[in-house]
Parts: sequence; structure tokens; C-alpha cells
Amino acid sequence: MFPGATAERGDANFVIVGAPLDASTTFEPGTRFGPRRVRHFAEPFDDYDHRTDQHVSTLGVADDGDVHAWGDVPAYLEYLEGTLRDVTWDEAVPLTIGGEHTISLAGARATEPDVFVCLDAHLDLREAYDGNRLNHACVTRRILEDEDLDVEEAIILGSRTGSEAEWERAEADDVTIVPPESVRAWLDETDVDALLGGRETYLSVDIDGADPAYAPGTGTMEPFGLEPREMRDAVRAVAPSATGFDVVEVNDRDDGQAASLAGKLLKEFVYTHAASDGPIASTR
Amino acid sequence: MFPGATAERGDANFVIVGAPLDASTTFEPGTRFGPRRVRHFAEPFDDYDHRTDQHVSTLGVADDGDVHAWGDVPAYLEYLEGTLRDVTWDEAVPLTIGGEHTISLAGARATEPDVFVCLDAHLDLREAYDGNRLNHACVTRRILEDEDLDVEEAIILGSRTGSEAEWERAEADDVTIVPPESVRAWLDETDVDALLGGRETYLSVDIDGADPAYAPGTGTMEPFGLEPREMRDAVRAVAPSATGFDVVEVNDRDDGQAASLAGKLLKEFVYTHAASDGPIASTR
Amino acid sequence: MFPGATAERGDANFVIVGAPLDASTTFEPGTRFGPRRVRHFAEPFDDYDHRTDQHVSTLGVADDGDVHAWGDVPAYLEYLEGTLRDVTWDEAVPLTIGGEHTISLAGARATEPDVFVCLDAHLDLREAYDGNRLNHACVTRRILEDEDLDVEEAIILGSRTGSEAEWERAEADDVTIVPPESVRAWLDETDVDALLGGRETYLSVDIDGADPAYAPGTGTMEPFGLEPREMRDAVRAVAPSATGFDVVEVNDRDDGQAASLAGKLLKEFVYTHAASDGPIASTR
Amino acid sequence: MFPGATAERGDANFVIVGAPLDASTTFEPGTRFGPRRVRHFAEPFDDYDHRTDQHVSTLGVADDGDVHAWGDVPAYLEYLEGTLRDVTWDEAVPLTIGGEHTISLAGARATEPDVFVCLDAHLDLREAYDGNRLNHACVTRRILEDEDLDVEEAIILGSRTGSEAEWERAEADDVTIVPPESVRAWLDETDVDALLGGRETYLSVDIDGADPAYAPGTGTMEPFGLEPREMRDAVRAVAPSATGFDVVEVNDRDDGQAASLAGKLLKEFVYTHAASDGPIASTR
Amino acid sequence: MFPGATAERGDANFVIVGAPLDASTTFEPGTRFGPRRVRHFAEPFDDYDHRTDQHVSTLGVADDGDVHAWGDVPAYLEYLEGTLRDVTWDEAVPLTIGGEHTISLAGARATEPDVFVCLDAHLDLREAYDGNRLNHACVTRRILEDEDLDVEEAIILGSRTGSEAEWERAEADDVTIVPPESVRAWLDETDVDALLGGRETYLSVDIDGADPAYAPGTGTMEPFGLEPREMRDAVRAVAPSATGFDVVEVNDRDDGQAASLAGKLLKEFVYTHAASDGPIASTR
Amino acid sequence: MFPGATAERGDANFVIVGAPLDASTTFEPGTRFGPRRVRHFAEPFDDYDHRTDQHVSTLGVADDGDVHAWGDVPAYLEYLEGTLRDVTWDEAVPLTIGGEHTISLAGARATEPDVFVCLDAHLDLREAYDGNRLNHACVTRRILEDEDLDVEEAIILGSRTGSEAEWERAEADDVTIVPPESVRAWLDETDVDALLGGRETYLSVDIDGADPAYAPGTGTMEPFGLEPREMRDAVRAVAPSATGFDVVEVNDRDDGQAASLAGKLLKEFVYTHAASDGPIASTR
Repeated sequence: MFPGATAERGDANFVIVGAPLDASTTFEPGTRFGPRRVRHFAEPFDDYDHRTDQHVSTLGVADDGDVHAWGDVPAYLEYLEGTLRDVTWDEAVPLTIGGEHTISLAGARATEPDVFVCLDAHLDLREAYDGNRLNHACVTRRILEDEDLDVEEAIILGSRTGSEAEWERAEADDVTIVPPESVRAWLDETDVDALLGGRETYLSVDIDGADPAYAPGTGTMEPFGLEPREMRDAVRAVAPSATGFDVVEVNDRDDGQAASLAGKLLKEFVYTHAASDGPIASTR
Repeated sequence: MFPGATAERGDANFVIVGAPLDASTTFEPGTRFGPRRVRHFAEPFDDYDHRTDQHVSTLGVADDGDVHAWGDVPAYLEYLEGTLRDVTWDEAVPLTIGGEHTISLAGARATEPDVFVCLDAHLDLREAYDGNRLNHACVTRRILEDEDLDVEEAIILGSRTGSEAEWERAEADDVTIVPPESVRAWLDETDVDALLGGRETYLSVDIDGADPAYAPGTGTMEPFGLEPREMRDAVRAVAPSATGFDVVEVNDRDDGQAASLAGKLLKEFVYTHAASDGPIASTR
Repeated sequence: MFPGATAERGDANFVIVGAPLDASTTFEPGTRFGPRRVRHFAEPFDDYDHRTDQHVSTLGVADDGDVHAWGDVPAYLEYLEGTLRDVTWDEAVPLTIGGEHTISLAGARATEPDVFVCLDAHLDLREAYDGNRLNHACVTRRILEDEDLDVEEAIILGSRTGSEAEWERAEADDVTIVPPESVRAWLDETDVDALLGGRETYLSVDIDGADPAYAPGTGTMEPFGLEPREMRDAVRAVAPSATGFDVVEVNDRDDGQAASLAGKLLKEFVYTHAASDGPIASTR
Repeated sequence: MFPGATAERGDANFVIVGAPLDASTTFEPGTRFGPRRVRHFAEPFDDYDHRTDQHVSTLGVADDGDVHAWGDVPAYLEYLEGTLRDVTWDEAVPLTIGGEHTISLAGARATEPDVFVCLDAHLDLREAYDGNRLNHACVTRRILEDEDLDVEEAIILGSRTGSEAEWERAEADDVTIVPPESVRAWLDETDVDALLGGRETYLSVDIDGADPAYAPGTGTMEPFGLEPREMRDAVRAVAPSATGFDVVEVNDRDDGQAASLAGKLLKEFVYTHAASDGPIASTR
Repeated sequence: MFPGATAERGDANFVIVGAPLDASTTFEPGTRFGPRRVRHFAEPFDDYDHRTDQHVSTLGVADDGDVHAWGDVPAYLEYLEGTLRDVTWDEAVPLTIGGEHTISLAGARATEPDVFVCLDAHLDLREAYDGNRLNHACVTRRILEDEDLDVEEAIILGSRTGSEAEWERAEADDVTIVPPESVRAWLDETDVDALLGGRETYLSVDIDGADPAYAPGTGTMEPFGLEPREMRDAVRAVAPSATGFDVVEVNDRDDGQAASLAGKLLKEFVYTHAASDGPIASTR
Repeated sequence: MFPGATAERGDANFVIVGAPLDASTTFEPGTRFGPRRVRHFAEPFDDYDHRTDQHVSTLGVADDGDVHAWGDVPAYLEYLEGTLRDVTWDEAVPLTIGGEHTISLAGARATEPDVFVCLDAHLDLREAYDGNRLNHACVTRRILEDEDLDVEEAIILGSRTGSEAEWERAEADDVTIVPPESVRAWLDETDVDALLGGRETYLSVDIDGADPAYAPGTGTMEPFGLEPREMRDAVRAVAPSATGFDVVEVNDRDDGQAASLAGKLLKEFVYTHAASDGPIASTR
């Protein structure tokens, strides 16, 4: 159980779901252990948040455990989507702990956002990778172009690498890239509430958005990344508009740095969303 | 390059192929790093074998590198089978380094053996696992029942666990199970040459056949297993009859014990097969 | 949850309780992570046991989670004892996963055995260690001399080291030491059922009884130890007489070998006790 | 021996004492290995400091080894206090290497400071933790409220988390919190000499004050922390006023980052205190 | 093979050479595994670079494998120099992956630069270390004073430690030290092209120039170091003038952070040099 | 300090000397950390030995610390020889903890034995390795053929690999090889006292003699090795005749198994030699 997730599932405002998918990781595997790592390394965190003067254990967070992953990724995503949609129907915010980034597609389908905001080292805008359209390197493209969704735009913070085709796709009107060197200024200068303008937003944190020093335990480290406070401040800026959240791509190949950061960002999301009286997905 | 594999591909008697498939590992992933681990930890081994008075570098071993793995397992196995079949057509013995055990299906299809001998902790006789018939827990069943193959029997040494259905399947006439406690006696008492009776044999070493002390770096440790000398002596007994060989399920989650053992068993196979003037698959 | 522990607590024949005490480890700490490690590395084990033709998931095993440990060891042991006594009152067998060996005192008090059988590298017969009578190096002495218990004898299998005073204590009539070199012969030659003679027995497995090769993840490795099959056969021999069981001293400082062995021995206990229709503690 | 600590104990200006207490760590244990890790990873550091033009080996640093820790924490702290007080009576500055943060209480009692300055992620202002008033999460409170001490105030740099009650305690006049985001500005804008105003000061560095990237080897990682240069500059600012120093909470669960930083900060303290002709505790 | 190094050796503009020398590392060994670590952790990097709009696989990079190291360091350096000189004679830029820093001497001798620019935590200006003039702590001194070379000056970025004698040597006219705190400003304020003024330059990246958080896998961690973006920008500034490049001192004692950063900096060098149409050494 | 090595150097019967040489390791380095690893993992061992009824702390064992290693191996061996010879002149037995196997040459020169007994995976009978006659793979040859020594024979227990030339050298009259499979029988059937016949003997334990399961932390793992009890019994058999002892080739690349075994074998040597009133080298 995630520390402080003491609410009953039926009464919850936030529901944590582990999605230990580890099917398409192209380099170092282990995202299947992400949910348990994140829960584990969140144990020493205080229940109380001084900034918002709230206790996580009083905010109605439930931990629904993991949705066991298997090899049929399309079927898994559909099943996971159902689990997460149930959360929205119960007027709660789904908080998914990956697992590989692909699971954000289920999160987006379950919450049907207008805007997809992502912290990520990679563009994830490929049409396919090794012939696989559900590879984790394609997830933002999938969300933008999903026929059952109507996502207006994707805002990718901290992105610093991609194929030539991805960078071309990124030039389209529905994609905004903020490179890591510019994220601090973007946060300082942008009225994120105004930018999102009341549109329902899904926030996805790929832990590899961080510089590898802060999150070595991830499948595809990419140097020159974000600092944790930048990630935190992005989470704080977007959380009031977000109806769904995930943190993904944590594996067990470090000394806990990646999981520790992931758990902290999840808690920041909860504190901020709760304090702002943020929205619930209107998917029905 | 595997140490000593100095032959040209075209002149080789043995061809090493890395098959870093890591798709269906159900517990701890990392078999994708098996081929490079095995090559790495074989570096300190002597080129010379005192028992057979041979140098591996003079036995005509080539290292054909890895067959890059991707997510479409049926397609991958077909491609890998082609690579290995080319080896047999060139009158060489394919030596595959996994990767997960599933790749033995490609090895068997390429060499079309009469008998499949396996060192393994698990029966691998499932019809399917999580709905996947190409899961590594099904590979011996797949080989026995493959419609393009005509395998008469499977002999599984060191097997100690399986589902109830697997144990029932194991009672059929085409399966022989030698539990780990009996392998030493079986080796002492069996005339393996006579047992195999000139039939072409494929030998597969799942490193988890070993007790976890000797091979912790594998996806599904199973205590009470084989000792390395038992595995070595089984390899020595079967190698003269074998037209194909693989060693599988090594990952990077230990201090090199599993890879070290795997590399040594591969070399034992080569020394013994070469010394015995063992057969080449007659698959044409 | 321990894999297969699918029974409801109220209906259970066996109840798993994690006891992550890590207070008096004198060398390498980490037993606090023992329960989660053991549950984790038990995941790949088959539910079915061929020898006894049973599924663990049908034997009525419940997992009651962990009893959170804190620094006041006497109070903790008392609290844990209460939890375990509840199990016996519900006519189930408590299966405790340590945590340090000290927790066996709670297990013994809860089940009130006539005989204490232990697999252990150390005598654990100290009067005190660094002035602490509840140090893990004293647990067998504590159990033998506990004023609320009436333990007739302790049988320690695999013990190979102790202080001079401990060896003197070991010469008393109520202690039997079987050194590791003699355990195989002892198992072969002893009618354990007759030896225990219907007396209620508590079985404790200190994982450091194993040779360090098989269980490096423990606080105080001691070479020249037991082999896993010897430990397994001892568990099989004692389980029919045992009304309580624990496996202790697993930490997170290896690649899973210790936890894998510990989980397997726990399952062997369950299969054997269930198959033998073993006793429940008559502590009321 | 700490590198360069070549002075005889009797002639020393600084005395290093290892205090490997590891009793109340609430999450990941291993602080017992802190002293040896810090000494080890300090080995490659140069003896010479360019900024102050000094060699550590000529500054009169002695290494008095470790004060072996045992389970009775009050007794241990008393014993350790005696060892450290002896240092002050010999007109030297005690430099303690933890071990858990609790040992700062002994350091403070031995040096009887007017001000307690601390680099720490946590407030450590709890009245008790799990009923234990000597838990490491209470140490700053203990020092502030110790009846034998007369500490006027605590200044905690980098603190970013605590319970609600701790934050309330932190509002009292005797506590100053500088959150990590403000430490750089605080250092730039504060005349620390003037702030301390000649008052005797004890400086304690809890390595978890650093962001986890810089010190993953600690018991309770807390993201969004200090950068090493901020910690260094704080040490440089306070060292001229400090009559005692410790660095605590390093464990062995990383690749040496935490110990490396800790050893460097200890050396910065020595160079700066020596160059400034800093004070000795007037505790007699 | 380094990812993307698909050119034939004879057609190459850049030639990668592994130099796994690990002879004089004074603290934590393992640089012998540097070349394979760097190649491995470069695998997930994209082939395409958005900034320069280039694919590494079209820039004519060849990977010439490793020059096997042995114990006779002078002989090894001579042999390595020959290999690298062949590269320059073929009008390509040698890119050496260490191995210990000593190998930069071979790189400098092969390219005969006017200026030696180095990212390094250490001055490496010793006359000898433990009596060894070819110790890695002497390499910049060796290059400056090599009788067969005519290096006008060394510019060392990020250097923060050395012996007293090294700091004295650093005051000579032919050495410029930019301490890590000043590197960002130096990069912002310096016209590096003008500074180098068309002189042929050799660029050496000792990975320990980075703060240990970013590169824990190196032999002698030194806190308070460079950030990766500073290192990247220095590589970008110098690459247009550089006729030789190396990245050294990566070992296998971390979770891949050091190797990941090293591989990325090597790719930055290639992209930048290619885009600037940088020079080839005129050593004939 | 090695646990229990409480004697003063001048009064000692046994003197421990660390020899952290790590110059010629051909595969995985780290033997420089052998002495500290062995001392560390010996800490949890009991001071008392039940078999011989002795306490190590009363047997007159001193720990003389480490002889710092540097790159000039011939000079280092000479210096180390002096240190060890001093021990013999003081009528004590030198116990050297390596460091690479090469250091046995210093041990042999210091004690001038008639017989060299060795536990080792490798023959170590090379004339040179990579041109280096002081490589660790040559040490037994060096000792047999040293012009200042007069060693009659070498008995190598557990040896299982070597070059063709080494095996030829092994056929000479002055070499006896007992392969690992035969060591148990050799121990059972040989009257070692009679075999050694009062000749002064040097006993060297290369930890890689053990199977890798028992000692993964060594530079060149070689499967199919000795079991710890075989090594122990060999030490017990030879110790009464031995005037010098070493244990070598332990590195820091495992979870402590190799160091734990090494420390235990060293203690077995001390207990046995002391109980037998074994000889001191008559080298004057």
C-alpha cells in the first residue's frame, strides 16, 4: 500500500493503481518492479505537507493495488483503461504508477483529456518502434492521434531527444516542446492555469525526464535533463487542472533515487490537486 | 566475440549466435543481456582443455554476433530459425546463447532433432502461460508438439517444479523427468550413447537447472537444483549425439556466477562434441 | 501477500505473519526487509507441489501482513506473541517470517511447544550479548529458560559456532547439537516422528544455517553450512509434529538467494504439515 | 584511520571519533558502516587544500577510532559524550562521524554550545518517534530542550519535511528554518559571523540534507535537497565559530557518493576552522 | 560497436578506439571496463541530433574496437599512439575511450596538438606518483612537457584539487585553471574560437570532472564538480578546433551514470565537429 | 584490525599482514580491497573454536596492517618479503592477506619452504603472461624456480585449468596436481603429515580454488571448484607443517561470500597450527 493511502476505494478522491507493464522497454528492463519500488521508497516520507498544510492520509487516497500485466499489450491496456475509468466514474482521480510509459494511453483513454502534459526526456512521437505502435517510444503520438480521444495538444517538458521524424512531428501545432534548459524559465513566465484555460488535462511524469543523477533507475537514461525542483514545480503548476496522473518508467536498477523522486512527485500532485480543489474527469 | 571463436563463419564447425530475447520472462527480466554477459565472463577461461587436449581456437568456432530481438516473438523465432538453419546447411553446429528459453524452439526447428534433452528447473510443459503459447514456460511442450518437427521424446534433467497439468503431461511416454536428486545416479548408470542410439539430439541448458547458489542471475530461481559438475557431466554425455546446443536464461542480476557457468558449459559442449567427432544436423 | 495465501484469515489453517524486527543484528542489518523479500522471491514458485499432490492456494493459507516493528523489543515481542496466539486460538498454524531470530521467542510463547527444533549456524545460547538478553544470539537460551514456557529440549541442526559458554550450555541434557557435517546422516538414521514422540514442536529456520553460497543475504554469514536439500529434508521431517514455524534472518543484501530459499522452505513446511494432517497448538 | 589524521591523540587540535550507532533508523539501515565508508572514500582526496593553503596532515588531526555501539542508546550516548568531552578537555575539536543523527546529542553535551546549526532534510523536532525520545528524528528537539544544556537556538539549513507538530515547534523563537531553495540566498546575504556573534556553535551535517542524487546512501532520502556546494559553503561559514562538528547518516547503500561528500565536508570543516583559528569548547 | 559507428575504417571521418588501460588507478579500479560500458550505455541514444540536424550514422564514424591493454604501460602507450596516428594519417579524428587518463598521452602524441584542453577534477600535474611518471595523476604534466610534443598550453576546466606542487606548477604561463564554480561564466564570456585561434587542439574529458552525482562510476570521485550541461557546452565550444578527443576514467562501479554521460559527450563532440567542419591533425 | 588479533607485534606467534597488490589481475580487478574485506567479514565470527578449544585472541595473533602497494611489482615484492621475513625472525608465522596471488612469492621467499602447497583453480605455472613474469598466473612457477629458494615440490589442490604449456610443466616431478573432484578422496586417503615428512611448508589459499558459488568475489571465477569444507580440511591437514600462510585473490565484487570464506580459512589455519604446536620458519 502506498503510504498514507488509507481511504477505502469507494470513498476515495484519488485512487492509486500500479501498472507494472514491462513489455517494450528497449534497453534496461525492470519497470515491472516500478510500483513496488515507488511504494517502498515513499515509506519514509512525512504524511504532512507543510506548504499546503495537509496530511495525505486525510485526503482520501486509496491504493487499489496492481493490475497484473501480461504479454498481450493491447488487451492489457484495455483492461487497465477499464480499471482507471471506474475510478473516474467514482469521481476520483486515477494515479497510475508504471510500468512503462505505454500505460499512459490507458490513463488518457480513461480520463479523456483535452490536453496531455508530459515530463519526458524523449519525444515519444514515433509512429512505431521495431514495428510496434504500442512501444513506449510512441505513447505521446498514440495519445495525440487516438481515434477515441480528442486531445487538442501535447505539452512536453524536458524533452531533449528523438528521431528526425519525431522532431518533424513535433513541429505540428498540436505539440509544444520545452527543452530542459528552458523549463525553469517556462515555469516562471507561464500562467499555466491560463494556458490550460480550464481544459481537462492529463499529467504524465516519465521519470527519465530527470537528469540521470536524480533517476538512474530507469530504462533509457538521457543526460542533460531536468532537476527535481523543476519537475516538482511543473507538477504543482499542472495539478490543479489535471484529472489524471501517472508516473512511469521507474525500474529497480539503482539505489532508490528514481523511486524516491517518483513517489515524492506523486505526493506533490495529490497535495496540490487537493488544495486547489482540482477537477474530476467528466468522461461519462 | 566469444573468446576463442576465431574461425570465419564460412569455415566454422560451430557457430555461436546470441539470441537476446527477453519478452516473456515472468519474474526478473534481463535475459536480453545474457549473450553479452556470457561472452564477458568467458574471457578469463583458458583456451586449452586438458581433458580433451584441444584448444577452442583451433576447433573452428565462429561467433556470428546477436540476432537483435524485437517484440513480435513468432516473427523473431522464425527469423532466428533461419539464421540457425543456415548454420546447419553450412554443416556446422549452432550454439545459441539466450535470451529466454523460448529461443530453443528456433534451435529445434533449425536442427530437427529426434530427441530433445534439457537441463531445467522447470518442466516447461505448459500449453500456455497467461494465454501465451510462446511463453518460456511452454517451450518443451512446443518442441514436443510442433507440427513441423518430429521429436520423439524429451529428457529433462534436474526438473523439480511445474503445474499440475504439466506433471500430468510429463507422465506421457514421450517425456522422461530425472529429478535433481537423481541426476548423478542417472549419469552414472545410464549409457547415454546407447539411450540416444544414434538419434539426432538437441541439447538445451536452462541455467536455472542449477541451484540458485551457482546461478543467481536468472529469471526464476528455484532452490534444490543441480550442481555444476552434474550439469557438466550431462553436457559431456549428450554432446557427442547433439546437432544443436543452447544455453539460456542468464541475466545480469548477479555477480557473474550464472554467466560464468553458462560460458563454461558451452565450452564443454564444444570440446566434447569436437573430440567425439559428433554429428551435424541432417536437416536438408 | 505471500503467493497462494488466498485464504481469509478466519478460515485459515496457516497464517503468515511478517515480523520485520531488525534491532539487535550485530553485523549486517536489513532483516527488516526480510518479509517483503521472502514474499517477493516466492512469486515465481509454482502453486502446485508434485510430491504431496497439493496446491498451496487450496490449503487454507492466509497472509496477515506484517506486525510493524519498533524499538522496544520486549513490548514488540509481547505484541507479536498476541498476534500469533490469536492464530493458534483460531486453530491455525502460525508461520512467521522474520526479521531477526529474536522473534522466535514470540512464536514459542504463542504455541507453547514441548520441543524447539532449529536450523541455525549459531548456538544462540548466550545469556546475553552486549548486555542484552533479547539479542538474537540468545534466542534459543531464552526459549529453553523462559519462565512461562516448559520447553523440554532444543535440537539444533547445522550449528557450527558459539562462544565457550554457549558450548558449555550446549552440553546440558536439554540441548542436542547436530553439526552440519552430520545432518545428512542424522536425517537418514533418525526416526524423527519417534524422537519427537507426539510432543508439540516449534520449528525455526534461521537462514544462516545454510552455507553462505545459498543464503548470502543474512546478517552473519558463517561458512561450512548446510545444503538446501538438508534443510528441506529437516523441514519435511519435523513439519508433521510442528505447531508453529518461522524462517528468520533474511535480509536484502544479496541477489535473492536467501529469500528464495526461505520462501521455498516455508512452502515445504506447509505442504508437508498439510499432507500429514499435522497438529495445531493446544495452548488454551 | 581517516586520511591525513596523523597526529597523536594527545597533541591533536582535532579528534575524529567514529560513532557507528544504527539503532533507530526508521527506513534503510546501515549507518553502522558510516565511519568506515567515510574514511574509505576520503582516501583519494588530496592532503593539500589550495583555498587555505594548508595540508590536513599538518593541522593536528588525530583519529581515535570508533566507539563501538551497542543496543542501550542512553548508555551509549553517555559513553560517547565522555569520549568527546575528553577531546574538549584536551583543547581539541571533536569531529564525530556517525552513525545515526542521535549521536549529535552526545556531541552537543560534550561541547555545550550556545547555538546548534544543522544541515538536514528533516526537522528532527519530534517529541518522540514510535515512543522513543532518542530516535534520530528527535535529535534537534532533544538538543534544544536538554536539561543539562543551555542551547539558545537551532538553525536548520535545508530542512524540507516534518510532521505537523514539528512544524509548529519550528515556529518557536529558538528555531530558524532555512528551506533548501533559500539556502544559497541565505548564505549570500547573511553575515554568519555576526549572526553567531561569538557564541559557541555546534555544527552537525546530516548527509540527507543533500539531494538524493548527491547522497543516495542514507537512511531516509528526501528529494529537492541541497547541492554540495551549498553544504560546503555553509560549513565554511559556520566552521570559524564551531567548537564541535559531526557528519551523520551515511550508510553503505550506494556507490560511495554519500561517503565521499561526507568526508569532503569534514575536511572543509578542518581546513576552515584551522585557517580561522576557530574556538575550542569552554566546557570546563 | 559504438552505436551508429557504421562506417568502414578506411572511409571514416572519426575513428573510435577503446583503450582499456587500468594500471595506475590509485583508488577504485575498473577503467578496463570503460570502453564496453560506454558503448553499452550509448545504445539507447537516438542516432539523430536535433541541434545540428545530423545522424551520427551518416557522419562517417568507425569503431576500431579496443587496443588490448597489458602491464607494460610505456610500451602500451607507444602501441596505442601508433593506432591513433594511423587514424590521423587517414585524415580522420581519433576518439579514444579510456581506460585511465594516462592514455591521453598517446592521443596527444598521435595528434601533436598546440593546445591541450581538459575537463578534469584533478590537476594531473604531478611529476610522479608513487615514483611512477606515467601514473594517471601526471598526464597533463607529461603532455605539457613531452619532448616529442610542442604543446603551448593546457586549459583545465573544472579542476578543484591537487598537491601543493601541482598548484605551483599550475601557476606557470602554460597552464590555465578554470575552477568548477567559474566554468559556466567562462563559457559564457569566452570566445573559445578566438582563444584557440586556429591552433590545433586536443580535447580530453576525464569523467571525474563531473560532480560524483553525475558520474559515480569513476576511480577517484571528487565532490563539488561540474554539471553535465557545463561539460557539454565545453565540448561544443572546443570541438570545432579539436583534432583529437578522448573520454576517460569511466569504470563499472555505478548504475551506468558515468558511462551514459561519457557516451553522450562523445556524441556531442562528433556532432559539433562534423557540423563545424572541424580540422584533422596535420601530423605528417 | 583482524578480529581477535589483539597481540602486540613483538609478542606475537602469528602476524597478519595485508598485501593489497592489484597490478596484474587479468580480468576483474579489486584485490586491493581484499585485506579490508576479509577483516570486515571476519567480524561476526566467534573468537572461540570448539574443535580445538581455543580462543583466537589468546593465541598471540597480531595484525600489522597493510603494506601499501604501488606499481613497481618487483620492488613491492621485495619490500613485502622484508616485512614478512621480520615476522619469521621474530619467531612468528606470517599470515598474508592478498592482494593478487603474486604476493605468495614474497611469502615463500620470506619463509624459504621446502614444499609449496596451494589451493587454486589455476595452475599458475606460466613462464610469463602478456610478457610479465610476475603476473599472478605465474606465481607457482616463480616459486618453484626461484633462484633464491629451494622448493622441492608444489602440491596444487583443486586446480582445473591452465594453458597447454602449464599442463606440460605440471607433469614434471616437482608438481602434484589434485583435481577438485579428487580432493575429498585425497584428503581422506593421504597422511599429509607423512607426505610432508617434517619439511617446512608454505600454504597458499587462492580463493578461486572454491567453486564460484562460494567465492564469486574474485578476479577469475572458474566453475566446478572446491567446496568450502574441502578447503577447510586441506588447511587443517597442512597447517601443522606450515611456517607461512596466505589467502589471496579476494575482491569486493560480491556480497561478502569470498571474504567470509577467506577469513574463516585464515582462522582455521591459526587454530590448527596453534593446537598442533606447528613450526616456525628456520630462515636464519
